[in-house]
Amino acid sequence: MELTVYLAGEIHSNWRKEIKDLATKQNLPLQFKGPMENHDKSDKIGEMILGKQPSNMLTDEAASSINNLRTQLLMKKSDVVIALFGEEYKQWNTAMDASRAIEAGIPVILIRPEKLHHALKELANKAQVVVETPEQAIDILAYVFAEE
Amino acid sequence: MELTVYLAGEIHSNWRKEIKDLATKQNLPLQFKGPMENHDKSDKIGEMILGKQPSNMLTDEAASSINNLRTQLLMKKSDVVIALFGEEYKQWNTAMDASRAIEAGIPVILIRPEKLHHALKELANKAQVVVETPEQAIDILAYVFAEE
Amino acid sequence: MELTVYLAGEIHSNWRKEIKDLATKQNLPLQFKGPMENHDKSDKIGEMILGKQPSNMLTDEAASSINNLRTQLLMKKSDVVIALFGEEYKQWNTAMDASRAIEAGIPVILIRPEKLHHALKELANKAQVVVETPEQAIDILAYVFAEE
Amino acid sequence: MELTVYLAGEIHSNWRKEIKDLATKQNLPLQFKGPMENHDKSDKIGEMILGKQPSNMLTDEAASSINNLRTQLLMKKSDVVIALFGEEYKQWNTAMDASRAIEAGIPVILIRPEKLHHALKELANKAQVVVETPEQAIDILAYVFAEE
Amino acid sequence: MELTVYLAGEIHSNWRKEIKDLATKQNLPLQFKGPMENHDKSDKIGEMILGKQPSNMLTDEAASSINNLRTQLLMKKSDVVIALFGEEYKQWNTAMDASRAIEAGIPVILIRPEKLHHALKELANKAQVVVETPEQAIDILAYVFAEE
Amino acid sequence: MELTVYLAGEIHSNWRKEIKDLATKQNLPLQFKGPMENHDKSDKIGEMILGKQPSNMLTDEAASSINNLRTQLLMKKSDVVIALFGEEYKQWNTAMDASRAIEAGIPVILIRPEKLHHALKELANKAQVVVETPEQAIDILAYVFAEE
Amino acid sequence: MELTVYLAGEIHSNWRKEIKDLATKQNLPLQFKGPMENHDKSDKIGEMILGKQPSNMLTDEAASSINNLRTQLLMKKSDVVIALFGEEYKQWNTAMDASRAIEAGIPVILIRPEKLHHALKELANKAQVVVETPEQAIDILAYVFAEE
Amino acid sequence: MELTVYLAGEIHSNWRKEIKDLATKQNLPLQFKGPMENHDKSDKIGEMILGKQPSNMLTDEAASSINNLRTQLLMKKSDVVIALFGEEYKQWNTAMDASRAIEAGIPVILIRPEKLHHALKELANKAQVVVETPEQAIDILAYVFAEE
Repeated sequence: MELTVYLAGEIHSNWRKEIKDLATKQNLPLQFKGPMENHDKSDKIGEMILGKQPSNMLTDEAASSINNLRTQLLMKKSDVVIALFGEEYKQWNTAMDASRAIEAGIPVILIRPEKLHHALKELANKAQVVVETPEQAIDILAYVFAEE
Repeated sequence: MELTVYLAGEIHSNWRKEIKDLATKQNLPLQFKGPMENHDKSDKIGEMILGKQPSNMLTDEAASSINNLRTQLLMKKSDVVIALFGEEYKQWNTAMDASRAIEAGIPVILIRPEKLHHALKELANKAQVVVETPEQAIDILAYVFAEE
Repeated sequence: MELTVYLAGEIHSNWRKEIKDLATKQNLPLQFKGPMENHDKSDKIGEMILGKQPSNMLTDEAASSINNLRTQLLMKKSDVVIALFGEEYKQWNTAMDASRAIEAGIPVILIRPEKLHHALKELANKAQVVVETPEQAIDILAYVFAEE
Repeated sequence: MELTVYLAGEIHSNWRKEIKDLATKQNLPLQFKGPMENHDKSDKIGEMILGKQPSNMLTDEAASSINNLRTQLLMKKSDVVIALFGEEYKQWNTAMDASRAIEAGIPVILIRPEKLHHALKELANKAQVVVETPEQAIDILAYVFAEE
Repeated sequence: MELTVYLAGEIHSNWRKEIKDLATKQNLPLQFKGPMENHDKSDKIGEMILGKQPSNMLTDEAASSINNLRTQLLMKKSDVVIALFGEEYKQWNTAMDASRAIEAGIPVILIRPEKLHHALKELANKAQVVVETPEQAIDILAYVFAEE
Repeated sequence: MELTVYLAGEIHSNWRKEIKDLATKQNLPLQFKGPMENHDKSDKIGEMILGKQPSNMLTDEAASSINNLRTQLLMKKSDVVIALFGEEYKQWNTAMDASRAIEAGIPVILIRPEKLHHALKELANKAQVVVETPEQAIDILAYVFAEE
Repeated sequence: MELTVYLAGEIHSNWRKEIKDLATKQNLPLQFKGPMENHDKSDKIGEMILGKQPSNMLTDEAASSINNLRTQLLMKKSDVVIALFGEEYKQWNTAMDASRAIEAGIPVILIRPEKLHHALKELANKAQVVVETPEQAIDILAYVFAEE
Repeated sequence: MELTVYLAGEIHSNWRKEIKDLATKQNLPLQFKGPMENHDKSDKIGEMILGKQPSNMLTDEAASSINNLRTQLLMKKSDVVIALFGEEYKQWNTAMDASRAIEAGIPVILIRPEKLHHALKELANKAQVVVETPEQAIDILAYVFAEE
């Protein structure tokens, strides 16, 4: 058995690499998916493919239609979502992705610093497990495979 | 035919009253639902019912378990969601509610100031209509009932 | 028991009125829903509510986002769809609405002139009944209520 | 990860080959499905298997029952649909296939010449991305697999 | 609370009237639905509405497309199905209706003479309750409403 | 808006009456459903309707097929489940009903004495809110309707 | 791509072998599933595993609970059902299996002699294709894989 | 074809090993999943990963959130559940897991000593097959694969 894990959350820090390294170290049969991590490409993919757009909002709309296609296809193939909230940025995408997963019956492991708990309390209550670090998230997935 | 509308979003301004007044003025057969708008009660409802909790995080968890029950029951009875993003607060609840509705097949009308569009672009792409004011949201619902 | 009927198809002829009159004459407990039949309003509703758009395509996109909201809300409340194809116009909306209904488990009565059958053959095969006139469609719904 | 792509649309031009060649050139892990492209066989498959039918309409019905079986089986195995509209033919099948996919939660990339946008505006609004060329459709799928 | 009961089974005996009378006698808040009980009309409804058909098989197909529309609409509004098997006729419709209900999550009360049990054993195992008489079926529904 | 509440749990104490009285006192628009509370009738309903059974196990099977029909019909009409665990009896039915509700997307309010928490910990984690008394359960439902 | 085909219908003739041989001859990537074809074992499997039962009806019930488990598991893995009706036996199982498949969205190819069409007309109308011979059924599946 | 079997039930006896050995002996293509069988680890996994908790109840909640994640992921990959009830312990988890599986359309084979039948009668009625020993459960799964 192998599990596919969607990594939802900001693309400015290297937390995904950290998670993947931890999984490799523990030899876990996990496959990881996630959004485009090249921020510039993620913002400009609409214009890159569909051509120059008449306004910033339309540039955003073009990019988001393609980013959302990617997320939809990858999340449908995922068994579990790890969603990380950090202290910067609005991160409405992260909340959207986590919520969509929960509604679709895909369990979510939420990683957030405790100081954000109040603002995230309803999402935390819906998440299956709430942790503070990538190590904890990976330890939980290791437990899913553990035989004793 | 009557439609039930869930009003997702911040509870610090009076936008819900504005929406309800506009609907009344146009005589629209709309019933409105939404979260507890008394902020203090919303934050303390866990302790009010379940008693004193050992930490802030547990106070939050107690409150959110009850707030989420309310949202789940009311959203399931709703035909459409109007989700409003303002310029303050983290508003992760709003993103969570809008996303849950979309995943469940309930269409979302998103109200946000244009300057927030970039940060909301993926959610905007998933929403059925994106507007800037409560008036526009109500005009759209009026159109659903219009015969000519 | 009352049935709600969504009337999908062109908005240039008066076939919907014909259907409603036939239902009234037979005293059938049917409630009818359908798209905005004022063609001009249907095409311009986006600009009417959201304001002037920078191009024809964006005017169309604004209108269609609102028309689709209307269709989604009304079709979800419908028990059965009558879809009419005439000899003019592209009528891709009609094909889209009929197909969406079928996929969602809402049965479709298809009205089309026999000469269009070849081009409609796959949709006709998916429809629950295929007829040529509004009278036949209403006679079928009358049969659903008939006791002997 | 491999994605299965259903190619919905007319079977008179060679756009499917173009798409497959573009995917091969980019080495994308895509598997393609689609309708029977031999037009004559597609129209006559009913009589070929079930025998001579008493009328043109029944010949069509026989063929469409088998074509629809094929589409149902192949679309259920597909992750994404590319639907192409050209300037000829009624193409109601294409609208039907695209709409069915959307309703079933399979995202659609719509390819159409801009001049058809008005007639397709509601379907375009429901599609996840709207483009003008097969190259753009394939570039979008390439982006789903891109790591940076 | 009122329950809607679909009565599936042969239309040659008066078992439906018996059931309805028993419900009336016990004052149960039940609404009954079922197929067209006028056998001749049920067989000829296709030609009555769609006109003369070129063969017996097509007369049957025309009738069944309309009978199935009726069944689909009425069963979707039903909370529970009572399916009765008698000693005559093939009754494949009854098996089809009962099985469809079970698959759709609508519980089935099966009425059959014990001597038919062997041939019906797989369907009996899927039914929620198996009885021998209409009285027993109604007693079971009375129990659903009983307070003590 | 009215909510229908299924009361799952033992039928030996009067906790259901207590809940209903509390709801009446607060004037809450709640409708209550639940199992047959006459224990003897609940155990013997199979033989009462289907006749003498050849063994205790078959008496049980006859009764449970009818009790399960009742539960299935009533729970499908319910918006929320209150499940109470007491200190006596095996209460596997209560666990079954609560779990079925959760899986079907119906939120559960779990009432149990804290000393049972360890044995119930996985079910408690799946419940939407966990409380100790009927008063708390009703206070939570009152909050769902509260406007301020 | 490989398709899994469930073969529903009587177990007294060798039609399943005929179908499998035809598929082998055409080299079709089909995997076949079906009920236990050893009639005696199918009827006695309940007693073989659960021990002597107190009556014929309970012997049947024991067997059917196990046969239904088999059918449920195998049909869930199937893409398409071929259901054959012959001129003997009641064949209520076949009607049940075909109907369950249709309701679950699995298309059915119905094989029956034309003389049975009248009694099967509603099921025939729900089936995706209706044929008279195993050869025709296999030719249809061959068409699903055909590239030209 | 391979089937995945989730083994729900107590983790204090060696019944899972017995089942696996029987499957191996019969060479059945079965893959087994189940809960963490190390009781101590199962109870303490919350604190092991999330750190010391302020109360027993919170230690339980932490553990159960992780155990439930495991069960959800593994059960979703399972085709069938074997649920065993023994004479000790409350076993509410087992009832919860069996019920969840049934509601999700995963058939359950229930193993229990006959003396527990009365308390389990509603769950037994919902299970697809009820047996007394692991041997019987495995014989039933062997029958699913048997060709004659």
